[in-house]
Amino acid sequence: MVARNSNIAKLPGGYLFPEINRRKKACQEKNPDAKIISLGVGNTTEPLMRHITEGLAKAAAGLGTGKGYSGYGDEQGFDALRGAIADKLYKGIVDPDEVLASDGAKCDIGRLQLLFGADASVAVQDPSYPVYVDGSVIIGASGAFDETTKQFDGIHYMPCLPENQFFPDLKALPRTDLIYFCSPNNPTGAVATRTQLKSLVDFALANRSIIIFDSAYSEYISDPELPRSIFEIEGARQCAIEVSSFSKPVGFTGLRLGWTVCPKELTFDDGSPVLKDWNRIMTTVFNGASNLVQRGGLAALDDLGLDEMQKTVSFYMENAAIIKQCLGDMGIELYGGTNAPYIWTRFPGQKSWDVFERILEEAFVVTTPGSGFGPAGEGFVRFSAFGHRDEVIEATKRLQKLKI
Amino acid sequence: MVARNSNIAKLPGGYLFPEINRRKKACQEKNPDAKIISLGVGNTTEPLMRHITEGLAKAAAGLGTGKGYSGYGDEQGFDALRGAIADKLYKGIVDPDEVLASDGAKCDIGRLQLLFGADASVAVQDPSYPVYVDGSVIIGASGAFDETTKQFDGIHYMPCLPENQFFPDLKALPRTDLIYFCSPNNPTGAVATRTQLKSLVDFALANRSIIIFDSAYSEYISDPELPRSIFEIEGARQCAIEVSSFSKPVGFTGLRLGWTVCPKELTFDDGSPVLKDWNRIMTTVFNGASNLVQRGGLAALDDLGLDEMQKTVSFYMENAAIIKQCLGDMGIELYGGTNAPYIWTRFPGQKSWDVFERILEEAFVVTTPGSGFGPAGEGFVRFSAFGHRDEVIEATKRLQKLKI
Repeated sequence: MVARNSNIAKLPGGYLFPEINRRKKACQEKNPDAKIISLGVGNTTEPLMRHITEGLAKAAAGLGTGKGYSGYGDEQGFDALRGAIADKLYKGIVDPDEVLASDGAKCDIGRLQLLFGADASVAVQDPSYPVYVDGSVIIGASGAFDETTKQFDGIHYMPCLPENQFFPDLKALPRTDLIYFCSPNNPTGAVATRTQLKSLVDFALANRSIIIFDSAYSEYISDPELPRSIFEIEGARQCAIEVSSFSKPVGFTGLRLGWTVCPKELTFDDGSPVLKDWNRIMTTVFNGASNLVQRGGLAALDDLGLDEMQKTVSFYMENAAIIKQCLGDMGIELYGGTNAPYIWTRFPGQKSWDVFERILEEAFVVTTPGSGFGPAGEGFVRFSAFGHRDEVIEATKRLQKLKI
Repeated sequence: MVARNSNIAKLPGGYLFPEINRRKKACQEKNPDAKIISLGVGNTTEPLMRHITEGLAKAAAGLGTGKGYSGYGDEQGFDALRGAIADKLYKGIVDPDEVLASDGAKCDIGRLQLLFGADASVAVQDPSYPVYVDGSVIIGASGAFDETTKQFDGIHYMPCLPENQFFPDLKALPRTDLIYFCSPNNPTGAVATRTQLKSLVDFALANRSIIIFDSAYSEYISDPELPRSIFEIEGARQCAIEVSSFSKPVGFTGLRLGWTVCPKELTFDDGSPVLKDWNRIMTTVFNGASNLVQRGGLAALDDLGLDEMQKTVSFYMENAAIIKQCLGDMGIELYGGTNAPYIWTRFPGQKSWDVFERILEEAFVVTTPGSGFGPAGEGFVRFSAFGHRDEVIEATKRLQKLKI
């Protein structure tokens, strides 16, 4: 008989977000008349704006014509899209050949784990987006789950807390092959400064580590002093890969379009380029992002599209301000919500899932328990700024009545 | 420094299709006026038909409305799509819960390799679609590449040749955990009979192996006696997973939509359901097929869409008949091209790449060298029936003048 993959067997319970959904459904069944509002999963809610839907609709109609139809394209994406990403989002500091379009950041992280394999040692921010850890476990880069520490053996967790300004103490950090780093951060909403990122890059260069930099929320940065890409930092081309996405800035969560940037200078210890193997992975177990969605991405990157992107980001950041104001007025300890669409709240002495349950049961508002992002998230709860305005306002009214 | 993944280092040279593209480009540069025709990669060429493009365009416009917009959905796909696949394509012999929609069969095979991991032993048809072997190597399920045999150590190659009716000699086959099997076959065009598949299922049940059945070309079967799905065979629910796709029957190669069927009865040796772990993989390193493309898939599965699917398949099968007639008239030994869109031709005493080069250089027609699909493909060349009608006819005119 076929043995179960022992790496998958290491994963405890379910993935965070399906578990939240399960509890939400249970609450709805118990309270059939309740109008539950989700500030949980970071799921975009606002319709796409006109220029982008027109681009998509035009491309869809085009698929019915000889000129507009296309079958398999290059797995790395349209040259025009790769060029537009390099030009418009990176202002030319990366080369189009270094940009590989994809069906999203989560999927790219899974494929990067396949690229580096079971032998690559891993460090992650704690708390962090679940796929860094879960995917590393599945590929075999970890030991067993330790029920006491709530950590996987063999993975180094870098606590990111208010006490260290959500930036790891690099002096206390052992060398690892890979360092996952997300800024603006999901879930804490912390944005690394230029100085912080420079120290991270210097640390990676000194240790010959590779940073996997997740910039999926970079468009939410409005402060011009804060870096949007790791490649704004000197030395990053020798030690970093960037993962990013159209999901949050344009609302493509359901459409699926992301990209990675892998600089040509980045090499393995044998001197061979990482980009060459990354291309091999992308052409072997991937077949390109949808051509239709790539056309939508192109529409999002011309002048009208970039303007719509800015409007979408501004809308969600107004939500963030409303939520932040409400929680602040309630005297809750909070972080983030500026230059990032997440508000990270702390409930000293309480368990994340307990706070989650009380907010759900008493206010019918879904949040995300911080402990779901790692042990250092225990005692925190994340509020997402993605939501319809009327629902966000209604949620804050209900929250104000809570005693938490 | 970070070590290169030793599994990726085992892969020789490039992926087959990029190499063909490279040679095509080189030929075009040498002959700038030549109008090169591709009967190489199995890439669909005909515009989508009206009902499906209307479905896509409507969905695209809908994304701009509150009602039509959707963000992240279930990673497994829309319930409606999973239901329609189960109902329309499987006539209810599989359950919607067992159908997981995805961005395509190639990607699903990569994820299945992640599911089973490095310790699962593997058998493949020889010749076969490259991702079965290449992906197994990347996940670590093989030894080194043997330059003499052109095989990877630790992978069992099952020769499928005219001499055995393209069906492996199961008596000579050692037990493996996984058996990759593709019918209608890419590249040979062979379609397994009900009796053959029954013997394969019985073999898998006796050995407690799991068959990964690739039915991406099942809609090309017109003979009602031939099985379109492994689940038409008694016992398959205990020993098979099916991988399939909208690419070839509807022309979604560029749009990206496929699915897997993993029966609830399929278990690992510890009794745990394979479907549970498969769901974990799909929710952890995947984020769902594009919602827009799923809407297109739904349009393809209603009555008008199914009619368009049939017309698309018929068109390409008329191409197959034209190519087959031409090559037959030339006295070339050939197989397939009935119930499958590939014609598999044999050139005794010649090397596949030599024949490929001569057809390219002398007729400006791109084919696919059989040796690219595995050592048993040496001496064969594949002709694809995907192409515009005028180009297919022009290609046959040029081929007729060749002395091969």
